[in-house]
Formats: sequence, C-alpha cells, structure tokens
Amino acid sequence: MQEMNTHEQFMKRAIELSVQKMKLNEGGPFGAVIVKDNKIIGEGWNKVTSQKDPTAHAEVSAIRHACQQTGHFKLEDAILYTSCEPCPMCLAAAYWARISKIYYASDREIAAKYKFDDSYIYQEINLKIQDRKIPMTQLLKAESEISFKEWDLKQDKIRY
Amino acid sequence: MQEMNTHEQFMKRAIELSVQKMKLNEGGPFGAVIVKDNKIIGEGWNKVTSQKDPTAHAEVSAIRHACQQTGHFKLEDAILYTSCEPCPMCLAAAYWARISKIYYASDREIAAKYKFDDSYIYQEINLKIQDRKIPMTQLLKAESEISFKEWDLKQDKIRY
Repeated sequence: MQEMNTHEQFMKRAIELSVQKMKLNEGGPFGAVIVKDNKIIGEGWNKVTSQKDPTAHAEVSAIRHACQQTGHFKLEDAILYTSCEPCPMCLAAAYWARISKIYYASDREIAAKYKFDDSYIYQEINLKIQDRKIPMTQLLKAESEISFKEWDLKQDKIRY
Repeated sequence: MQEMNTHEQFMKRAIELSVQKMKLNEGGPFGAVIVKDNKIIGEGWNKVTSQKDPTAHAEVSAIRHACQQTGHFKLEDAILYTSCEPCPMCLAAAYWARISKIYYASDREIAAKYKFDDSYIYQEINLKIQDRKIPMTQLLKAESEISFKEWDLKQDKIRY
C-alpha cells in the first residue's frame, strides 16, 4: 500500500470529516486533521452550532484534540490538513500552535460563495482599528501593564 | 454606587483576572470579560499552558464561557473587555461570535515588548499566502467543494 499516508490521503480524511460530521448536524461543512511523523495525531470538524461554541471550527478543534492527545500546547513539526483555507482565527491558532505546514483544499472565495464570512473577516483584520466594523476603544492602558510587569518578574513562568 | 458597572469597572475586572490567574499558573497575563445588558455573562483568562490548549486565550475562553452560560453560539449586543488588544485569533473569534464592541487596555506593542507574538501574527496574516512563514499549499480543491454543495442542499442546516 505504497499510496497510503500521502498528502492526498490525509486531505481526503479531512474532506470526509467535513461531509460526515456536517450531515450529523455537528456544524458547518469543515474538517481537519493534524499529522506528525506521518500519523494522524488529531482530528477536528466544525462544532459551532452543536457545541454552542463559535470558536469550535474544524482547525481549532483539531489543534485542541492533537494537544490533548500529545499532552502539549505546541505542535512543532506537525502538519495541518484542512478541507478549507483556515479563517483568520484558525490561521492564527496554527501560528500559536507552531504548526509547521498547512495544506488546504477549498479557499476563502469558495467559502464566501456559500456565505461563510472568512473573506470578510480577513478584510476586517487588515483594516486599521478605527476602520473596523466592530468598534474598538482603548481604556486603562497604563493600569494594564501591571500584569505584564508581574509576568516579567515571575520566576517559574512557562512561555508559549 | 453610581460608579458600579461602568466601562472602567468591567475593564478592571479583566485586568484583575489577568494578574490573579497568571499568578495561579493558569497561563499568560491576560484576562477578559463579556458584558451584556450591563451584566457580566462570561469571564476568561489565558489557560494555554495549564490546559495544554494553544487556543485558550483570555478572549476565546471568555467567549466560550459566555456561550455556555447563555446557551447560544452568538453573543449579539455583547461587549468584550480585554486586558490586552486581541490577537488575530481572538479578534476573529469576536467577529464569529458577533460581539458588538471591544474595549482593550494594553495593545500589541506592549505585548510584543514582553515577547508575545500578537504583532508578528498580525503581520503574517496580512501577507500573501506564498509569503508567510508557515508554508501553505492548496490540494484537492475540486474534490473539496462537495462538502459545500452538500451543505447548500441541506434543508435543516443551522447557519452561524
């Protein structure tokens, strides 16, 4: 079975999850797997509506699952396969998780065609704070640095 | 107590969480609260290292908490107060949750001073896919649209 565990195989699994789980009313049509050393270490799918969690996208779910499985908050040298280009939330999650490479199947244009907001949110994030649709106001800036200063002094802190 | 429940009070609670929970080794120095109708409906703090979850930032945690409390995956007319400007993951999460307004205390420049990657990830997300530090490759684009097509046909789908 020389063809097993190729990039296409892993992507097919991500797409399979995207269809299966959506049909089971878990959420939107998105699936993802995390692979390390040529083995799947985490699987995820969209669970936004079933779990009442707007952050439960396929990639975030797969990252959380892989971290629970491996017992670590970083997924260095791991690859993310996702049935659709990650939205900004999921892309940033991949950065925080130190994912090394991303394969995606559909893209934000296809997602937009089916009324998903990925493309809109990419546009918003690139705007200056004052131009965004969600108004943002800075407050108590001076008071807030105390938490960073305490962090800086903390001897047993774990960086991430 | 005319001064209760002002924006400053809610922000002070977010900052308080950022210090308290960090000292308890929950994670990095970040706290957030979600407010609706002048009441706190969710609280969150960074739990990345304690929960082994790179997505467990303060704002994501607060959004999840508020959604669990209210039993819904949208937080319309809710306000997010966060001790630091949301990173792209948390900002996009706020968009997906339909948060109406964000107050933040520290900003990405202060976060960068203390070696948090928020600013770096904002830069990366704004780059073209081929210029990013995490390589991204499209694969099986044609096959993947099947999940969107099935979604489109699904009669009982719940949009989010």
